Amino acid sequence: MHPIQDLIAQADQAINREDLETLMSFYAEDAVLVVQPGQVAVGRGEIRAAFEKIAEFFKHGVTVTQESMVVLEAGDTALVLADTHVEAPNSPKDERKATYVYRKVEGQWLCAIDNSYGHRVLEQLP
Amino acid sequence: MHPIQDLIAQADQAINREDLETLMSFYAEDAVLVVQPGQVAVGRGEIRAAFEKIAEFFKHGVTVTQESMVVLEAGDTALVLADTHVEAPNSPKDERKATYVYRKVEGQWLCAIDNSYGHRVLEQLP
Repeated sequence: MHPIQDLIAQADQAINREDLETLMSFYAEDAVLVVQPGQVAVGRGEIRAAFEKIAEFFKHGVTVTQESMVVLEAGDTALVLADTHVEAPNSPKDERKATYVYRKVEGQWLCAIDNSYGHRVLEQLP
Repeated sequence: MHPIQDLIAQADQAINREDLETLMSFYAEDAVLVVQPGQVAVGRGEIRAAFEKIAEFFKHGVTVTQESMVVLEAGDTALVLADTHVEAPNSPKDERKATYVYRKVEGQWLCAIDNSYGHRVLEQLP
């Protein structure tokens, strides 16, 4: 298993138990999160605030899991393609074709771009 | 328009006229190309050899174009989501949900991961 797969599993567990302190440790300082197609959060501060809103939106019942995953690594950069499931009691199950980019900083893989919506971001183009 | 969109347009033109010398200048030294799901080429040497085989496979008639594109940028790393069309007289038109990762090296954006197949790479998992 690629070490990034383990990091993503740990990040999912942190989301699911709303441990945002731990969750933020997986992101690069200047990371970008696609909050929803057409809306991004930039940097750990904005990303943390976005996850607080996401937790409220799902009435503190969200569960994120990765069903399958491929990691493509090129030096200090890696692209993850994943089948990501987002579930909550107040929302229909959402199966996403997620794309995550990781960057190795001082020997540690950090999430630089978190786009769980994959190509759905193209649907927001003018 | 993001500068990476222009670089991708130039790379497509280089593919379409089989100018591999120019094409290689858009890739990082340690770039990874998904030749087909389950098969990667690593580094400029392997990538160039792969494009020579791709050109032969399509009987020197391939045309690659990007129909729409979103660039997500985080510092010196960028993820591109694109609707990519691959056409050739000897092959049915292939519409791909492509994913490209770029890295800024000494002020220059270079392609680090070229995965035109997007999530199709997940179909090759054991």
